[in-house]
Amino acid sequence: MNHIVSSFGTTVRQLREQHGWSQEALAARAELNRSYLGELERGQAIPSLLTIHKLSIALGSSLSNLMAHAERIAQTRTVRGIELTAIAC
Amino acid sequence: MNHIVSSFGTTVRQLREQHGWSQEALAARAELNRSYLGELERGQAIPSLLTIHKLSIALGSSLSNLMAHAERIAQTRTVRGIELTAIAC
Repeated sequence: MNHIVSSFGTTVRQLREQHGWSQEALAARAELNRSYLGELERGQAIPSLLTIHKLSIALGSSLSNLMAHAERIAQTRTVRGIELTAIAC
Repeated sequence: MNHIVSSFGTTVRQLREQHGWSQEALAARAELNRSYLGELERGQAIPSLLTIHKLSIALGSSLSNLMAHAERIAQTRTVRGIELTAIAC
């Protein structure tokens, strides 16, 4: 799965945990299925713009902040991937 | 259709026109179907995170910038909607 998809999932999990919410609690607030939210947090589901929008409202964040958070995680993972490749070479 | 979906479509159209590209040219760069891109620009299709990511790369913008642009358009439309409602009352 694409880096940005898994980074978006991690973003949602991190922000949810910052609120101290369970997956059930966030799923209810965002009107999403709990197991779908689990897949999404693990980077196993690709959200649509509407789902991303629902999550941003439920998490009290703007869409652009949510994406900036995901981009930072994706960037860090890319750098780590390059470092690990360099060590292996 | 949701405000954010149509605002995202307008964002893509505006950035594409800033580059001076046809829908065909952007569709080719983003590896999307031309008619799907047309629907997306008119707010008639809901893009997935992967499609949004492809478009951000093709347009030379970050995901967060693309979303910030769409949020500004959505906000302007909401304000205009409120103003028109006030005039009608």
